[in-house]
Amino acid sequence: MTGLSSIHSVPVEQIATATLSVETAGEGFFEITRDVARFLKKINARDGVLFLYLRHTSASLVIQENADPDVRTDLVTALKRVAPANAGWVHEVEGPDDMPAHIKAALTQTQLCIPVDNGKPMLGTWQGIHLFEHRAAPHRRELVLHLIGE
Amino acid sequence: MTGLSSIHSVPVEQIATATLSVETAGEGFFEITRDVARFLKKINARDGVLFLYLRHTSASLVIQENADPDVRTDLVTALKRVAPANAGWVHEVEGPDDMPAHIKAALTQTQLCIPVDNGKPMLGTWQGIHLFEHRAAPHRRELVLHLIGE
Amino acid sequence: MTGLSSIHSVPVEQIATATLSVETAGEGFFEITRDVARFLKKINARDGVLFLYLRHTSASLVIQENADPDVRTDLVTALKRVAPANAGWVHEVEGPDDMPAHIKAALTQTQLCIPVDNGKPMLGTWQGIHLFEHRAAPHRRELVLHLIGE
Repeated sequence: MTGLSSIHSVPVEQIATATLSVETAGEGFFEITRDVARFLKKINARDGVLFLYLRHTSASLVIQENADPDVRTDLVTALKRVAPANAGWVHEVEGPDDMPAHIKAALTQTQLCIPVDNGKPMLGTWQGIHLFEHRAAPHRRELVLHLIGE
Repeated sequence: MTGLSSIHSVPVEQIATATLSVETAGEGFFEITRDVARFLKKINARDGVLFLYLRHTSASLVIQENADPDVRTDLVTALKRVAPANAGWVHEVEGPDDMPAHIKAALTQTQLCIPVDNGKPMLGTWQGIHLFEHRAAPHRRELVLHLIGE
Repeated sequence: MTGLSSIHSVPVEQIATATLSVETAGEGFFEITRDVARFLKKINARDGVLFLYLRHTSASLVIQENADPDVRTDLVTALKRVAPANAGWVHEVEGPDDMPAHIKAALTQTQLCIPVDNGKPMLGTWQGIHLFEHRAAPHRRELVLHLIGE
């Protein structure tokens, strides 16, 4: 059973954009939900669709639970099992975490789109927006943010 | 060899939005292609881009074959192999299907964007839009739909 | 530590669209970055968001390193390990590469959105846009491109 409701329209007026840099501390999740909220506030966003784009191939974007940190621990474990180090990869230029990082990025997201209502991202109760660093060493990562709407 | 064709433009006029609730019967695929078509019809959509966003972390969105149901059976099996229950996960608050559900959601999509032409989603011949429930028990899932276009 | 910068807005004016066909030579990556750049040039794109949509369920879209070809070789290997042929799949209508292709497509992307600045996709230094063919035989694949912006 499905139900469709709350249908309404607003005029499209602007595309607002910004870059966001995130310094990671090595492999793991770095929540950026607050940074995204800050961007929406700065541009006085109302309704629209928000786009996030990560300019890297060894880190990714994931919307996942931000309540119990065990979820993120297990996600790191799960991806390690799918893309282990020293598993006969040809590409090892930057060390044993190099190729696994590319695989983990390919299996998650480089880009996200999130609905915005009254200036706030319409995340579910347990959803947080995360940058997922796949390299062992700390990195500086760059994102591009866009809001299309009013 | 690649070919670029049918280039044209339309003015952007509106963002139309709605929420869609879907009641799942536990793990598996629930096709929502018709619900999406119904939304496009209700707002008298013509050309644009459609955005779907799922407000949950233990279910996901997948565009996959809707002809042979065996494909969906095998997809459930494949994800179960990548994220099995009782595999030493730390997060087991809601039972053995809890953490595997988060992993399966992270490896598929929380959001989709689909082109719309003359009021219809430009799906390929074999493509259906599915909500992929990863929890064992039935759940009520909420989606946000947006059309940017005319 | 995070940093938000370069915030600015432009009016939304048009949605430009086109179809792109790509002939693949069987399993592997086919870079379409130049085709995308050609589309942006033809429509005189300036700022906006670009959407790519693949109308198939046994191929996918991946933004990944286009410098060292070993990365793409290893990605093919990694996906083969996650979704091997002859692994007890029910759906084998079109041969042993049929169901693995659907799984690989479900674990990567059917659609992408990429920011555009001054007519150019804001890809990172090492990022290329690829069509990832999962079937063993050559196929003709069709994409839909949209630019929302000015």
